[in-house]
Amino acid sequence: MKLLGKLLVSAAFLAITVPAVATQTDSELRKEAAEFFEVIPSVIPAIKDNAITHAKIELGKKLFFEPRLSKSGFISCNSCHNVGMGGGDNLETSVGHGWQTGPRNAPTVLNAVFNTAQFWDGRAADLKEQAKGPIQAGVEMASTPERVIATLKSMPRYVEDFKVAFPGEEDPVTFDNVAKAIEAFEATLVTPAARFDQFLEGNDKILTTEEKQGLSLFMEKGCTTCHNGVNFGGNGYFPFGMVEKPDASILPENDPGRYTVTKTEDEKYVFRASPLRNVALTAPYFHSGKVWELESAVRVMGTAQLGVTLEDNEVKAITAFLKTLTGEQPRIEYPILPISTATTPKPELMIPPPPAPEKAPAKK
Amino acid sequence: MKLLGKLLVSAAFLAITVPAVATQTDSELRKEAAEFFEVIPSVIPAIKDNAITHAKIELGKKLFFEPRLSKSGFISCNSCHNVGMGGGDNLETSVGHGWQTGPRNAPTVLNAVFNTAQFWDGRAADLKEQAKGPIQAGVEMASTPERVIATLKSMPRYVEDFKVAFPGEEDPVTFDNVAKAIEAFEATLVTPAARFDQFLEGNDKILTTEEKQGLSLFMEKGCTTCHNGVNFGGNGYFPFGMVEKPDASILPENDPGRYTVTKTEDEKYVFRASPLRNVALTAPYFHSGKVWELESAVRVMGTAQLGVTLEDNEVKAITAFLKTLTGEQPRIEYPILPISTATTPKPELMIPPPPAPEKAPAKK
Repeated sequence: MKLLGKLLVSAAFLAITVPAVATQTDSELRKEAAEFFEVIPSVIPAIKDNAITHAKIELGKKLFFEPRLSKSGFISCNSCHNVGMGGGDNLETSVGHGWQTGPRNAPTVLNAVFNTAQFWDGRAADLKEQAKGPIQAGVEMASTPERVIATLKSMPRYVEDFKVAFPGEEDPVTFDNVAKAIEAFEATLVTPAARFDQFLEGNDKILTTEEKQGLSLFMEKGCTTCHNGVNFGGNGYFPFGMVEKPDASILPENDPGRYTVTKTEDEKYVFRASPLRNVALTAPYFHSGKVWELESAVRVMGTAQLGVTLEDNEVKAITAFLKTLTGEQPRIEYPILPISTATTPKPELMIPPPPAPEKAPAKK
Repeated sequence: MKLLGKLLVSAAFLAITVPAVATQTDSELRKEAAEFFEVIPSVIPAIKDNAITHAKIELGKKLFFEPRLSKSGFISCNSCHNVGMGGGDNLETSVGHGWQTGPRNAPTVLNAVFNTAQFWDGRAADLKEQAKGPIQAGVEMASTPERVIATLKSMPRYVEDFKVAFPGEEDPVTFDNVAKAIEAFEATLVTPAARFDQFLEGNDKILTTEEKQGLSLFMEKGCTTCHNGVNFGGNGYFPFGMVEKPDASILPENDPGRYTVTKTEDEKYVFRASPLRNVALTAPYFHSGKVWELESAVRVMGTAQLGVTLEDNEVKAITAFLKTLTGEQPRIEYPILPISTATTPKPELMIPPPPAPEKAPAKK
């Protein structure tokens, strides 16, 4: 009886999934995929209110790798958004000033320029707004705009770089321009030519049968409700646990997500859908960073968001497909940073007292 | 009377220093300098017991930037030996695991391959021996050889890289080979074509009159007793405070230097003479990292090592000369690191209890 049940389930499974692949030609699959997804551009996209120039990109690269933007002089943007590690840090939550850990996993900086909004709760409209957050967050870089400006103005080379990057401005070394330069550099961190993109562009042979099956399942199961567009996410807000709330270890109760931004009751535990490009490089997963295996993350998404228990081979196929979203990683020459001078603020390593209970720590 | 005194002092100073420059032609100055110093090679030097190959350099570069060599997964060699900041971290003493600070300033990795021995107390014979220290030091990366090997073996890409870098070895992923690969990469971190080198090679115009005066003073005052050779130091041991012990804030009593290595009474407060190439980039100075201004460091050296109070214009000229030791900084493409797998040891951020009093913390 039990065996019969299993056989029936298997038959039912075959009835649902195998035909999808068997009956769908590559060009049909491509056509369907093109309704949900876009090929990632290999050119630097235009940015609102921030003309991208080479001078700005080069300055932004220095700032991105600049530990003196932090109070300690030890932590740079790249410490947690490591360009050699998929644009994240492969930690549950990042290490910041005084070895404090933040409440949310560091999202990848790669292709972040294509997200509709930044941070897990979308509280920053764009990368220039985002860049200002971690620099000032007490549990991250713990600096202030004043300290950042004093630091940069103390180094003639930086002052010159800002003049060239922001021509015509009387006093170009501003916190706004720091953010704009970082945004300009980050806009270059796109990862084109993922195998999926090559498939979408017409190369039938670039994906295996299992990967194509995974793509087909990803669309049929409804993953595309939240994960679509050029970044496979990053463009909408959804409750984590749309159908069934995941375990508290994955969805900690003390982080109500977008509710902290909007204070709207029905946005409790709502988060920005994670962009899935390069997802194979960005473990651990979810805002809590509690899930290390991509397979497990797929499974959790099945139960929590879709209300289905995905079969092992479905999980395997979807995971195989997700791995085709790894694009060409950025090639970056390590910047040579300007030299500190007598007036450069000295590093301050001292660990601040824990934040008062009514003030929540800064969130990613 | 006071003014007359000042004038007399000035006259005396002129009598001592100006003639040295006035009477010495550029070629005489060059000839004298060539007795003490060598032009830095722009090729990768040969290394004892470690044939340098491109495969080894590329692997070593990944390892140098690899935070997963640390227990936390957050600290890499480059965290404290930042290739964009003169090969150091511009901190008094480095930040390590659990935000602990080490007892000594991080020496630059640039041109370190030319030092006779490594660390402030010369306790490592070469870079491959040195590389093993910080990885294991509790206040630095806090890892173990076992953890490092388990980490690297968990990533097929690293296993492949070791196979290629160490051909013919049955089990190439070893802690010794980790150190050898890092040494191979570090051997590429040479900074050729400093203005001083160009002067030594025959370009009279590359140094200003003040810089030449500084070079002349550097030799006449006796700085060359300790700072000579290709690296202007890094090749001998001398007491810090040869003539007069500096202030305890600069020479803390609890760090007896090379004595901790040799246990020889007369090596108390003996340190390896700092290599001075790129010294303008590597503030703060001395093993304690307590002196931020190069001018101040020169002054301290005058009283502590030479027993002379250098005049202001002598300090200025010597400092100007030292700045000509800044060479071309390395151009390094940021390495793309292999992806963690299910068997990669997870980051451990927990801060260990303070070390037992009888066991001193690891020193640079």
